[in-house]
Amino acid sequence: MPVGTAGSVKAVQQEELTAKVGAQIILGNTYHLYLRPGCDIIEEAGGLHPFIRWNHPILTDSGGFQIYSLSDIRDLEEEGARFKSHLDGSEHWFTPENVVEIQRILGSDIMMMLDECPPAQSSFDYAKSSMELTHRWAQRGRDAFLNTEPRYGHQQFQFGIVQGGVHEKLRIESSHFMTDLDTEGIAIGGLSVGEPTEVMYEITDLVTDHLPEDKPRYLMGVGTPANLLESIARGVDMFDCVMPTRNARNGMIFTRHGTVNLRNAKWKNHHKPLDPAFPSQLCSQYTMAYLRHLFKSNEILGLELASLHNLTFYLWLMDEVRKHIRQGNYAEWYPVVAEETEKRL
Amino acid sequence: MPVGTAGSVKAVQQEELTAKVGAQIILGNTYHLYLRPGCDIIEEAGGLHPFIRWNHPILTDSGGFQIYSLSDIRDLEEEGARFKSHLDGSEHWFTPENVVEIQRILGSDIMMMLDECPPAQSSFDYAKSSMELTHRWAQRGRDAFLNTEPRYGHQQFQFGIVQGGVHEKLRIESSHFMTDLDTEGIAIGGLSVGEPTEVMYEITDLVTDHLPEDKPRYLMGVGTPANLLESIARGVDMFDCVMPTRNARNGMIFTRHGTVNLRNAKWKNHHKPLDPAFPSQLCSQYTMAYLRHLFKSNEILGLELASLHNLTFYLWLMDEVRKHIRQGNYAEWYPVVAEETEKRL
Repeated sequence: MPVGTAGSVKAVQQEELTAKVGAQIILGNTYHLYLRPGCDIIEEAGGLHPFIRWNHPILTDSGGFQIYSLSDIRDLEEEGARFKSHLDGSEHWFTPENVVEIQRILGSDIMMMLDECPPAQSSFDYAKSSMELTHRWAQRGRDAFLNTEPRYGHQQFQFGIVQGGVHEKLRIESSHFMTDLDTEGIAIGGLSVGEPTEVMYEITDLVTDHLPEDKPRYLMGVGTPANLLESIARGVDMFDCVMPTRNARNGMIFTRHGTVNLRNAKWKNHHKPLDPAFPSQLCSQYTMAYLRHLFKSNEILGLELASLHNLTFYLWLMDEVRKHIRQGNYAEWYPVVAEETEKRL
Repeated sequence: MPVGTAGSVKAVQQEELTAKVGAQIILGNTYHLYLRPGCDIIEEAGGLHPFIRWNHPILTDSGGFQIYSLSDIRDLEEEGARFKSHLDGSEHWFTPENVVEIQRILGSDIMMMLDECPPAQSSFDYAKSSMELTHRWAQRGRDAFLNTEPRYGHQQFQFGIVQGGVHEKLRIESSHFMTDLDTEGIAIGGLSVGEPTEVMYEITDLVTDHLPEDKPRYLMGVGTPANLLESIARGVDMFDCVMPTRNARNGMIFTRHGTVNLRNAKWKNHHKPLDPAFPSQLCSQYTMAYLRHLFKSNEILGLELASLHNLTFYLWLMDEVRKHIRQGNYAEWYPVVAEETEKRL
């Protein structure tokens, strides 16, 4: 899922997301949209879909991750989390119930539960009590979901989030809890927050073993192309990450043969496209010398082309994944590709 | 002509310039391109057209205006102008001959002469000696043009530039000089540099009276939609200006009913497109509330949509102009439109 933080996938037009990237669903951030433009504006517009002019599915997170990473938490208690806006310092409450209400107003197709995200290296005791709070919040969030109605006549779904830090016992317990809660899909949260990659894979592998096979599994905030391929091998179905668009804006692009730094002096005199056979404008239409020039000159066009390319590459890779899963040879195919994408060109 | 300063019309893709904006020609800045990426890179690429992937005409200025406005002039003498790059402080020479050579390397379809641009309120004596230098440079530039060949097999044209400040006697003299020089087109320089708008119109009117009717007249660096309409009434054929794209990036858009500040609080709850009948995405597809949100959130998408819109509007306006000139009713049509475009919505 391309990430459209504040109602726009950065530097990409909505029509390009469908026509060029082939995106089927995008992500919006409840925290950002709640603070700006605010629920009143989005409700007047008839929800996030008409507001941003996107007629395909939208997943919105609960805002939980952003209140821990961006805002100044004033008070974390049983009822919910009080935080100060990173924009203007104003105080707000998120509770398991009101993030359901906010996401009803956003009209997201998939809404996420409010959870607590403990730091990567939390102790067992800290991670346990944090997970238990997340579970109590999840029960309240599910009740709020089941007791309220969609606002705009289309169905909405809710995903719970497995927590438990890097502690296997807690992750198993949380997986069972979220399975029993019977949400429409289940997310794995609290990973890719600083722990070693191998630990992320191990926990992912463990959690997916304890999740129902007939519901989508969503690994939140992950990751590189190799991270995705490895996680898919461990049973994950859905991802979101700012990496393709954020790295693009820094001149870093992903390709099937490795990553490329467009600012690198080695491209200065490279008057050929990078990969004429790859279906992105960046790869097939423009020379590397020109792309480097755009980044060295801080031209917005560079941000546009690189963002479009990286998203096109990620979605292309997921198409390849589906093809190889259907062909039954994913396990043999993916390690070679994963290693290739980690190279530096 | 949309302005593509450093080889990119800011925030707009080349394919959008043809498919959406309907641009027939764009402008590139010799000063910027000479400094970065540099002539060696552009020559290796086979000229500016293949380098930036634009298969339509390009006009390049001589760099004169930028060395006076952006760089630190070290030495202005008969031979040429020595200046320090605004990028790295390195020293360079522009002469009437080497700007022809540089524009041969760029491969621009229309190249401009090196001139001196005196400040708006220059005295008669200063403007006279400056104009005389410009004329001597123009003769040298024309000789250099006639004694050199295009590099890439396509024809190139050269325009001289009428100077003379706000002094009628000098402007008439300069018009005759440039007419006699027999370049393929003639530009009017040194206007829109701080003088009152009425003075700009008067000088334009005077100059065009002394230019041949069968050659294009190009008013450099102008202007608002009303400036264009008024100047066309006075006999101008071509314009370039950063205004549509620069103002777009500040959230200011031009429409047939006046200018609009997209950041204005009045659009906060305006959940309709501005002008569904106007053929730009900004006007017809997105609501004002969303566009305001994009600008308040500093989303790149806002810059893209506003830049696309303003260029589309300018080119649409020029289409309307051509239509009314052909219909023979331009003189009656334009004052109403000019006044309308000056309103603030």
